[in-house]
Amino acid sequence: MREMDISGDQSGQAQSQERAISKIVIIIAMQSEALPLVNRFQLTEDPHPPCGFPQGVPWVRYHGSYKDLDISLFWPGKDPTLGVDSVGTISSALVTYAAIQALKPDLIINAGTAGAFKAKGASVGDIFIISDCAFHDRRIPIPVFDLYGVGSRKAFETPNLVKELNLQVAKLSTGDSLDMTQQDESSIISNDATVKDMEGAAVAYVADLLKVPAIFVKAVTDIVDGDKPTSEEFLQNLSAVTAALDVAVEKVITFISGKSLTEL
Amino acid sequence: MREMDISGDQSGQAQSQERAISKIVIIIAMQSEALPLVNRFQLTEDPHPPCGFPQGVPWVRYHGSYKDLDISLFWPGKDPTLGVDSVGTISSALVTYAAIQALKPDLIINAGTAGAFKAKGASVGDIFIISDCAFHDRRIPIPVFDLYGVGSRKAFETPNLVKELNLQVAKLSTGDSLDMTQQDESSIISNDATVKDMEGAAVAYVADLLKVPAIFVKAVTDIVDGDKPTSEEFLQNLSAVTAALDVAVEKVITFISGKSLTEL
Repeated sequence: MREMDISGDQSGQAQSQERAISKIVIIIAMQSEALPLVNRFQLTEDPHPPCGFPQGVPWVRYHGSYKDLDISLFWPGKDPTLGVDSVGTISSALVTYAAIQALKPDLIINAGTAGAFKAKGASVGDIFIISDCAFHDRRIPIPVFDLYGVGSRKAFETPNLVKELNLQVAKLSTGDSLDMTQQDESSIISNDATVKDMEGAAVAYVADLLKVPAIFVKAVTDIVDGDKPTSEEFLQNLSAVTAALDVAVEKVITFISGKSLTEL
Repeated sequence: MREMDISGDQSGQAQSQERAISKIVIIIAMQSEALPLVNRFQLTEDPHPPCGFPQGVPWVRYHGSYKDLDISLFWPGKDPTLGVDSVGTISSALVTYAAIQALKPDLIINAGTAGAFKAKGASVGDIFIISDCAFHDRRIPIPVFDLYGVGSRKAFETPNLVKELNLQVAKLSTGDSLDMTQQDESSIISNDATVKDMEGAAVAYVADLLKVPAIFVKAVTDIVDGDKPTSEEFLQNLSAVTAALDVAVEKVITFISGKSLTEL
């Protein structure tokens, strides 16, 4: 029975991979990253809470059509007590789960700003498509639990998109801190990551559980192995880099329009 | 309209605080911690996935009645790829969210093993009721974001339960690593925590968002500031301490039976 189910799912998945992509969920952690895209795609904010989500969650959905695509952009919203963006892995995992449950999208796009390493060739303003996500702050030194902690996952592969838009591809490492300790750095090196963020691997975890393909578009606001403190450089570059991210995501969405998953 | 809704909620909350507690959700991260309680309360496993949860999630629900209480024990299950318990903040946040959504419980109990500090007077086998939860591995050195990262929250207060069962009360600090770096230690000290775990503050976050009272019962498997490596001490003591946890949770549940939230 279970095997029948699985083969049924696989055949369903194969079919959906050939169909033109129609419903996209974009997950963006910060309002300042989300609003330029909301304006660009002329999305409108749902009444709160959206999608039948429970009272109390701060999650915001912006929704609309762009070309032939049904686009829902979710932002985890402001923390109800503190009023700052609900950044980090827990909020992004929860909103990704709830969005997939509510909308059953064909594709998840996690877009956002990130840190990156000049030792890996990155510069401020660079845009990366992510090939692999992993965590760098979940150290569990027990056999197999160690691998669970790292939680390495491949993003959905998009060779045509990367080639057509001439984008750089790199690995991403995720953690809940904006700074980086020595242990974080060792783990990031072990993850072979060029890009460092606070959400990607959490979105990848949920998308993988629920079998929704996920891609990651990350724009570099700060050089982690540079001279400037991350928080300062991050805030300084946030606005300009967000504009670059915005352009990149529009190109990605335009490329996706009319294509099936296998054509990406 | 919104104000009407809010006052309606508050009055509803006040009423529900006076009513006898009827539905309890217990969140337990590891199968070895969950199974003794499943046996003790004679809970039965739901068909998988439980509660209409989506295909793909490994979350397991054990359900039954104990005295006048409807008890659902959720265990985040084995990682579908790696086969180890889905420990840590993301899994426990997701399963707490989904369980609250599905069952609308009167009370959440997060029970589990934990590390603790002998400098704070803790010993292996001690049982703690938690007064406050916070994170120690979410450093975001930007004003207000720093407080969001720490995410300090009060547990639901249970003065009568603590007195009657003669339990120790302490603060909990949560992080996704089993070990502890120097930065983790500084944050744990700053959180004034006696107990260190990998789930509590995440369960507290979700319970707080969804306005469900949550209490935390933690049993000490290892002394973090002792001589032995945490992973070794943890595995060595897991079985004996789980038995102590099991006894404590039964006492807590028995105390809760027939009482309202305000009587705890």
